[in-house]
Amino acid sequence: MHVRAGASHHTNKYDEDLIQLAKIASISSLPEHNTDIQRAAEWLFTRLKDAELEDVQILQTKGQPAVYGQWLHATGAPTVLIYGHYDVQPVDPLDLWTSPPFEPTVSRTGKGQEYFRGRGVSDDKGGLLQPVHAVEAYLKGRKALPVNVKFLIEGQEEIGSPNLAELLVEHKELLAADMALSADGGQISEKQAGIVLGLRGGVAFEVEAQTVGQDLHSGLKGGSVQNPVHALAQFVADLHAPNGSVAVDGFYEGVREITAEDRADAAAFPFDEAAEMESLGALGPHGEEGFSTLERRWLRPTLEVVGIYGGFSGVGIKTIVPAKATAKISCRLVPDQDPDHVMSALRRHVETHAPPQTRLKFLPLPFRAHPYIMPRHTVANRAAAKVLKEVFGAPTLFYREGWTIPFFDLCASHLGIQPISFGFGLPTDGIHSANERFRVSMYDKGREAWIRMLQEIANQAAKPSASS
Amino acid sequence: MHVRAGASHHTNKYDEDLIQLAKIASISSLPEHNTDIQRAAEWLFTRLKDAELEDVQILQTKGQPAVYGQWLHATGAPTVLIYGHYDVQPVDPLDLWTSPPFEPTVSRTGKGQEYFRGRGVSDDKGGLLQPVHAVEAYLKGRKALPVNVKFLIEGQEEIGSPNLAELLVEHKELLAADMALSADGGQISEKQAGIVLGLRGGVAFEVEAQTVGQDLHSGLKGGSVQNPVHALAQFVADLHAPNGSVAVDGFYEGVREITAEDRADAAAFPFDEAAEMESLGALGPHGEEGFSTLERRWLRPTLEVVGIYGGFSGVGIKTIVPAKATAKISCRLVPDQDPDHVMSALRRHVETHAPPQTRLKFLPLPFRAHPYIMPRHTVANRAAAKVLKEVFGAPTLFYREGWTIPFFDLCASHLGIQPISFGFGLPTDGIHSANERFRVSMYDKGREAWIRMLQEIANQAAKPSASS
Repeated sequence: MHVRAGASHHTNKYDEDLIQLAKIASISSLPEHNTDIQRAAEWLFTRLKDAELEDVQILQTKGQPAVYGQWLHATGAPTVLIYGHYDVQPVDPLDLWTSPPFEPTVSRTGKGQEYFRGRGVSDDKGGLLQPVHAVEAYLKGRKALPVNVKFLIEGQEEIGSPNLAELLVEHKELLAADMALSADGGQISEKQAGIVLGLRGGVAFEVEAQTVGQDLHSGLKGGSVQNPVHALAQFVADLHAPNGSVAVDGFYEGVREITAEDRADAAAFPFDEAAEMESLGALGPHGEEGFSTLERRWLRPTLEVVGIYGGFSGVGIKTIVPAKATAKISCRLVPDQDPDHVMSALRRHVETHAPPQTRLKFLPLPFRAHPYIMPRHTVANRAAAKVLKEVFGAPTLFYREGWTIPFFDLCASHLGIQPISFGFGLPTDGIHSANERFRVSMYDKGREAWIRMLQEIANQAAKPSASS
Repeated sequence: MHVRAGASHHTNKYDEDLIQLAKIASISSLPEHNTDIQRAAEWLFTRLKDAELEDVQILQTKGQPAVYGQWLHATGAPTVLIYGHYDVQPVDPLDLWTSPPFEPTVSRTGKGQEYFRGRGVSDDKGGLLQPVHAVEAYLKGRKALPVNVKFLIEGQEEIGSPNLAELLVEHKELLAADMALSADGGQISEKQAGIVLGLRGGVAFEVEAQTVGQDLHSGLKGGSVQNPVHALAQFVADLHAPNGSVAVDGFYEGVREITAEDRADAAAFPFDEAAEMESLGALGPHGEEGFSTLERRWLRPTLEVVGIYGGFSGVGIKTIVPAKATAKISCRLVPDQDPDHVMSALRRHVETHAPPQTRLKFLPLPFRAHPYIMPRHTVANRAAAKVLKEVFGAPTLFYREGWTIPFFDLCASHLGIQPISFGFGLPTDGIHSANERFRVSMYDKGREAWIRMLQEIANQAAKPSASS
């Protein structure tokens, strides 16, 4: 058990790595952070080399680069492609953070409930470091890995991986593998592991309502011309039917019926709805009628305004009729909705549903992912179920997730491999929110699970019955 | 005609005054401009002294100060209180300005269509300088004025004059007068003068919708909790009935029936609706059914969202369910609505109309004015009608305005004088908007009108039939 000893001896180095990487403000959606994105990629380049990975390189794209590294000397064993992303979400509203988002901290007092704190510590900088550390433990301990590995760590996941498809196609041979594991993902709780069988896809767009050429004096003109905020509010209000469904023609085209197995997975999932609502600060659940909260999150497509703005937002009041108002809208898609068809339906809706005396403009936003669904029974899933059961001490559940990782579908489409999620974030990590955190115990448990997983994949693949 | 010669000789000095004053960014709604507000008050203090006004002083309030000056040596003649304001509106969105708002310019090429350009050149820095220059021309030319004058130039008009009532009460004797003229106001066109018989009042408030404790990941939670932007959009959409009326119980309490005389004034007013809509960049008129555009602006109360914001407003997309969203709302009121009653009705509406799973918060904003209405036949109106007819070369019309100048009602309530508007802005000045401008010809014509008006008031008051 040389490998596991190696892991525990280097605890401080592991923490230092995450602190160092989380200090880099690699926000992919904000151009002013381009330099930070570059710094993060360079940091990983150096780190993968230090971990004794080979052929380490920075793969350029039309946007931000990805970082690659490999170790391919496990003759006869499967090749595992390991995915992660080094970019992070923006941090506004900054005033909600109790400590600066890019001055990450960690406590290890041994008293439990210990966290890394800072933007990206969970999503996905903590996640991507776990397999790096696991691989390093093998390579510096046993001088060998039980399987072949290839790392692909990209820099545009938080903006929907707009250049990932092209990158996978361009480097198809370099990235060829037998299976793929995503280090971007989470577990159900600290005590309950699960395997994600499906993810929602997504599209996003912006709708701008304009009614007059420029802001007008509300006393002079108020009440006699259309107000773009009123118009946009009406448009947004009408995007949902009274039963909570999305009121856009063609939006639900291709949505699969929910199966008995889907419902059973949702029902078996440990979920205390009242406690969840309390922890979110919500008065209660809300959504499409006829579906449970988990079904709404996993199995149903949604349409959400992620931001709205128009007119005066300063302190006090400015007595104007604004010239325009804008809503940014994100949709989550489920199998077998097609992002392009949905975008066409949305565009058509915007073009044909302008409120009176209003010009509506449709602008696609850079977020586009197919929904993803995978079979239950694969070598990777068998290995993962076994390892997670050992590490978590409870049977591994199968479930679906509501979020979107474009890699899953793109990897399946362009490399012919259906990835599984093997991440260790928790639902309470506050990813994409203020005060993002990552449990120290999950950081350690995940590294341990990755170490076991690389061995277990080799074991499962060696069985006569193995099929990917 | 010593006085008029004096006026034309000093043309450049008049322009310089407006340029100097308009350079000061005296935005009353933004605390970071407090120093500029002070600078503007001090500039006026010096300028009134230079104009040979007496007892010039800065009147402190709980907010920004007002500037006072007088000349009271016209024994037996009426005393005229002249009102203006030196504060200005904010300038955002800055990118719409074709020249920096606080680097004012003027052209005098003699080719017509010449403008002062900059924030406040029309509203109300150009306006308030006209009577100062008129009085100065008398005092430096004839060494006397035909009437007694008192200037009151305040610094919080653009935020609804929150301290003006207290100031009028505190300085009731100092400000006592026979009539009051507001230098904050406008004319119908360069060729058509009018006398405003009524103004709308106003109130403003903010409504904040919150559904969860902080921004959530739209993939993780989207579709299962209420989105505050959806909730606020529904709330805003429901603020108006399908016929365009305000759907708030009690909102219309006290609204006077429109009279035949009101309708006749509106119908007689020179107004090309199609040309107006084109110049505003509007697809067409929009508002409460059953009323014409002018009736909507002058005679009907309105409710307008002046700004909305919530969630992500940066470049691209952030896949969140926002925690909250806010709308700033301004209402215009007509006789005999009571601002306090309307605010109570609005608060009750917010408190009882929360969308599902939504907390709505009501916050009053600092804008509160009674609507104002005055009789047609007064000494001041007779003098104004005669002077304006002479200066504009066309009969003077009576009409109403949609905007709000709190001074009018406060002066009537607290000093017992019903002011009239004697300003020279044009509807095309773009006040409260980007690229505010003031016609050079109106700047000159207004000064000429003020010079004549001060004399005409003395003439009218001396007539046996005079009654204020």
